[in-house]
Amino acid sequence: MSGTAKRFMDDDFLLDNDTAKHLFHDHAENLPIIDYHCHLSPKEIYEDIRFDNLADLWLGGQEAGGACSGDHYKWRLMRANGMPEDLVTGRDNGLARFTGFTGAVSLAIGNPMYHWCNLELKKYFGIDEPLLPSNAEDIWNKCNDILRNDPRMSARGLIRLSNVEYVGTTDDPADDLIWHKKLSDDPDTAFTVRPSFRPDNALDITGKGFAGYIETLARSVGKDNLDSIDDVADALLERLEYFVKCGCLASDHGFEKIPFNIISAAECNRIYKKAMASESVSEDEAEAYRTYLLLILARAYHKYGIVMELHYSCVRNVNERMGKMLGPNTGYDMILRGSCGQKLPQLLSELDKTDELPKTVIFSLDPSDNDQIGTLIGCFQGNSIPGRIQHGAAWWFNDSKTGMEKQMRALASHGILGNFIGMLTDSRSFLSYARHDYFRRIMCNMIGTWVKNGEYPDDEEMLKKIVSGISYYNAKRYFGI
Amino acid sequence: MSGTAKRFMDDDFLLDNDTAKHLFHDHAENLPIIDYHCHLSPKEIYEDIRFDNLADLWLGGQEAGGACSGDHYKWRLMRANGMPEDLVTGRDNGLARFTGFTGAVSLAIGNPMYHWCNLELKKYFGIDEPLLPSNAEDIWNKCNDILRNDPRMSARGLIRLSNVEYVGTTDDPADDLIWHKKLSDDPDTAFTVRPSFRPDNALDITGKGFAGYIETLARSVGKDNLDSIDDVADALLERLEYFVKCGCLASDHGFEKIPFNIISAAECNRIYKKAMASESVSEDEAEAYRTYLLLILARAYHKYGIVMELHYSCVRNVNERMGKMLGPNTGYDMILRGSCGQKLPQLLSELDKTDELPKTVIFSLDPSDNDQIGTLIGCFQGNSIPGRIQHGAAWWFNDSKTGMEKQMRALASHGILGNFIGMLTDSRSFLSYARHDYFRRIMCNMIGTWVKNGEYPDDEEMLKKIVSGISYYNAKRYFGI
Amino acid sequence: MSGTAKRFMDDDFLLDNDTAKHLFHDHAENLPIIDYHCHLSPKEIYEDIRFDNLADLWLGGQEAGGACSGDHYKWRLMRANGMPEDLVTGRDNGLARFTGFTGAVSLAIGNPMYHWCNLELKKYFGIDEPLLPSNAEDIWNKCNDILRNDPRMSARGLIRLSNVEYVGTTDDPADDLIWHKKLSDDPDTAFTVRPSFRPDNALDITGKGFAGYIETLARSVGKDNLDSIDDVADALLERLEYFVKCGCLASDHGFEKIPFNIISAAECNRIYKKAMASESVSEDEAEAYRTYLLLILARAYHKYGIVMELHYSCVRNVNERMGKMLGPNTGYDMILRGSCGQKLPQLLSELDKTDELPKTVIFSLDPSDNDQIGTLIGCFQGNSIPGRIQHGAAWWFNDSKTGMEKQMRALASHGILGNFIGMLTDSRSFLSYARHDYFRRIMCNMIGTWVKNGEYPDDEEMLKKIVSGISYYNAKRYFGI
Repeated sequence: MSGTAKRFMDDDFLLDNDTAKHLFHDHAENLPIIDYHCHLSPKEIYEDIRFDNLADLWLGGQEAGGACSGDHYKWRLMRANGMPEDLVTGRDNGLARFTGFTGAVSLAIGNPMYHWCNLELKKYFGIDEPLLPSNAEDIWNKCNDILRNDPRMSARGLIRLSNVEYVGTTDDPADDLIWHKKLSDDPDTAFTVRPSFRPDNALDITGKGFAGYIETLARSVGKDNLDSIDDVADALLERLEYFVKCGCLASDHGFEKIPFNIISAAECNRIYKKAMASESVSEDEAEAYRTYLLLILARAYHKYGIVMELHYSCVRNVNERMGKMLGPNTGYDMILRGSCGQKLPQLLSELDKTDELPKTVIFSLDPSDNDQIGTLIGCFQGNSIPGRIQHGAAWWFNDSKTGMEKQMRALASHGILGNFIGMLTDSRSFLSYARHDYFRRIMCNMIGTWVKNGEYPDDEEMLKKIVSGISYYNAKRYFGI
Repeated sequence: MSGTAKRFMDDDFLLDNDTAKHLFHDHAENLPIIDYHCHLSPKEIYEDIRFDNLADLWLGGQEAGGACSGDHYKWRLMRANGMPEDLVTGRDNGLARFTGFTGAVSLAIGNPMYHWCNLELKKYFGIDEPLLPSNAEDIWNKCNDILRNDPRMSARGLIRLSNVEYVGTTDDPADDLIWHKKLSDDPDTAFTVRPSFRPDNALDITGKGFAGYIETLARSVGKDNLDSIDDVADALLERLEYFVKCGCLASDHGFEKIPFNIISAAECNRIYKKAMASESVSEDEAEAYRTYLLLILARAYHKYGIVMELHYSCVRNVNERMGKMLGPNTGYDMILRGSCGQKLPQLLSELDKTDELPKTVIFSLDPSDNDQIGTLIGCFQGNSIPGRIQHGAAWWFNDSKTGMEKQMRALASHGILGNFIGMLTDSRSFLSYARHDYFRRIMCNMIGTWVKNGEYPDDEEMLKKIVSGISYYNAKRYFGI
Repeated sequence: MSGTAKRFMDDDFLLDNDTAKHLFHDHAENLPIIDYHCHLSPKEIYEDIRFDNLADLWLGGQEAGGACSGDHYKWRLMRANGMPEDLVTGRDNGLARFTGFTGAVSLAIGNPMYHWCNLELKKYFGIDEPLLPSNAEDIWNKCNDILRNDPRMSARGLIRLSNVEYVGTTDDPADDLIWHKKLSDDPDTAFTVRPSFRPDNALDITGKGFAGYIETLARSVGKDNLDSIDDVADALLERLEYFVKCGCLASDHGFEKIPFNIISAAECNRIYKKAMASESVSEDEAEAYRTYLLLILARAYHKYGIVMELHYSCVRNVNERMGKMLGPNTGYDMILRGSCGQKLPQLLSELDKTDELPKTVIFSLDPSDNDQIGTLIGCFQGNSIPGRIQHGAAWWFNDSKTGMEKQMRALASHGILGNFIGMLTDSRSFLSYARHDYFRRIMCNMIGTWVKNGEYPDDEEMLKKIVSGISYYNAKRYFGI
């Protein structure tokens, strides 16, 4: 068209200057991936599943008579373009779903989804032209052919292709980790898959399935019931020990708001019993219950040397009608504003007081919390661990060029960017490793631009240390991989 | 001075690269304007009023013995430069007011007001030099000469000059819409003027004039009193039906905070009666009252297919002394921080549950809400309407290059920028159409820069669709014009 | 490395275009400094102290048996790199502390600390190479040699070298200002040092040391006790009068949240008496007490024509363990989110109602408050003082390129940037004047870039007025220096 535009997504995609290009190509691009937090299925990895077509691989959908699973980021775009739900999450009409998605994503200029899709097409399928309505069917055919015929296009093959060294899945404490065990016994994986401990169900005392979940948890430790809050704590600690034996290196907690409300143990137990008797529990009571267990667990994380990840400012399932139709994780979650107030520093201080604060990674879904987090982590550093408390990578909706730059800029302004443990996929898809490439480009471009503008010295040694650290070495050291 | 600077406000103002220039000049600049939300007076349009001088046109002020009306954006700048109030809103001394304003706005580097003023001088008066203290009197004379002598310099003439296709005014439910009727009967307008339904007075149960307003509303439906909350609802619905008959395509609600508090109808009625009896109504009660009516109205908007606009995070008349002196809308409003919490998604979910969610446009005055809104709208899309729920254009104080870029960046990151219905003036001035030009330049520059940097393909067809859609076609389709 | 990068921190550091360079070098760089808010010790200035080495000068630390004082910005970086506390705040091992700090700050790419340090090394020590682990010991030796031997390297010498015209310190009302008196009697200073009135201790009714402080305050006005809240007010007013006699031009208040809760004087007195009797005072009561005194003081500031600075959204000493070990101001403070709600406009309106609103400078530590503040100040301007209400410079954690640009962009978008009173150091170090240089570069670059891009006319007269005003003349006029 205009003749002056850079070619879309060439090798120097997102790299605006020579320093950025050098840093990415020479010190970031080829390093292995530590994906310390994702939602991949260890069963699917073990079984080395394959996909029939791009709609199955990219969109997933409603299983016959079962759960609705797949890429809700993409579903949201399809709905935003007015597509009917049966094409969004229905499993039929693969081609119509794919062309409909292409129509939506092509209009979504500035959305990271357009970049991710094209990066995946380029990296895994060798597609060199941008995905557009005009070539959607052509790309559909090409990719499906590769999916069906290329032996590398399996779960494990895609992980290997992506140069992944470590995969940290997300697992319920009651999970038997049978697939993780099979994977670790398998000589053929060439990468490490480890569970992460995510006890949200046990902390969700106001959730509808709470009592039922407690039963599941009880069974996982060979009991019929958990009669008191300390029985719950003991069960969780027993399962944590099991997870650690299975190689677990991290835990994860998701909250709407960070809890901090300390009341007596007896009072907490009374709240637990109310919930188990299906009596109503107030928000304050729920917060006290959560605080009680979170402190016990955090101390155990510290004891085992594993990392605590805290996610907050997210509200889930806000669309009641669609929630009833499709269930959770189907694209009806949003940023909750409100900030952590003083609760998060109080929580960390309570743990630090007795020197039981674990390594902690903090993620808020609200990007306007970035500066607060940048200053908060600076209050709890030390203990001979560089970057002991981390500001987690731009999360979920912020997983865009804009979002990543905001998070890194806040981290850099208030602390040491060079100690950042970098990117995670947080994804359910085997192609999402392209997001590490995306992140590394954006990070190298940001740093390269500073150097280009004379805001940091053009010192090869320091720059290599910083860039390769953020890409790979810092996470490896931090998690102890 | 330095010899390297781009000329101020040339034809490529705000367009930094060739792609941006091409997109603006070839696909945006010459499209008609759909101004779907403004505060123009239909009476003044019908009467085709003229202006004697730039002070009258730009500044307005205190009417003899009457209301204070005019451009409070400009008044704020004059006060910020220490000008005495009699020059700010007094009607005398036009030249002194104008030169004083020029002194203020010239110091306001980076303020959109400086751009708007110069765009208006260029577009409507052919002034090609920047407005500065040194040439203020010269420009005053030139413009006044044109205002007095050029036959096109009337209300209608300015709208025609601006290539406006549709004007959506903002009207109280009790308004008889007499001027709208006259306008629609007039063969000479060459553009469409339609009322919008703004029932804020009926929802403002804690406002001082509430009981008096209810009387006005009652009279508009031929009654003496509205005895219950359902009488109020019925009156509003009757007026809405009348508005729709008069061509109304949109409603508008302004809130400090989005209300959502459902209690029984009987209880809501009791609250209404308290207010009518001049008894004190608590904030929680007021919220319940507002929720009750808002749900009824929103369902009616859905029934009629008209758009619901929701504005929030704005606090008005914060300066008590000046409020008493000048009344509302005189420059004493500000951003209220606090976010919509979970109330806005609850409101939309309640409506969506029964499939009665109208097309909705969401505006927060707090730009740090942008990302939340971007994720919120994604939870309520669908129903075969591309962009059914919209993130409204950067509003009021955010109506600047910085503010527009923030809003579009958030919208692009979280949804489909290509479905955005774009700009509105929200203005009381016949010259404010220059803001559409301003918006289109900023939008084209943002998109052009992505293309130039290789972040989106240089695909003429898609880019034309996106740019012309945001400039014109999306709003036309969305409102059904 | 890449050959295309601009040299780090050359004369045109942070100046990206010719207009920016011209504005900085010709209209900003050489103007004197008005440092209207800092934490320098008047005693140290009077005694003209010297430093033995860079660790003493830059890091300070725990005094033998005494307070921990020094640059907590730097301590935070050292902790963030995992350094043990005895190297962070311990006074031994100067070289190890300095090299450890160098290791931390070199990794802190994008952190203003790296810029400040290198600016200070360049400006005061003539060091022309960037500080890196590889040359840390070399720089240590060079600088220490200069510190010990160059006669200009004293407290006063550094202030003179920095072209400082005015230093506003921060002082408790009970302070006898003896060092200020000695300084003003000394013909040799060549710059003006004045106290600022900071009554935080008197307002901190829930603080542990409150009753003790009230005793100190009582003694400062020759009394044994302050029996009522009006005795406290009278004591503060007496001390304020004394401060004004000693040349005080500004007051300063630091709050977690801006208070505004008006109750009866009798009720406020009752709250005061409860606190003095060591009874518990609720948050609401504390807010009422603070409001009561703040209004009295603000009216006095207006009477004397002195400026009121309001700082908020900061929470201090969040790490309990370290607070016990090191005391306050040791690097354990953070941004408190939550905004001022409607309290700040209510406070200003209450004062404005009787025309007793003093000149006021508003600082929030939360940068996402910037836009709100920009719109708030516009509601209280006027009274023949250009920029009567100011949006204070990017404060503390925001004192970075990113933070400054955000603050100035918000100020420019919503008001008159040309009336901005500009930078302050807020620092405890004699080298921090380099931050004025830093600020001026960033400000000139922002303005120069607008001109370069054709967003403001290349008008020498206006640009000189704006740039030199923000650098120097506006503050001089505003404070009446």
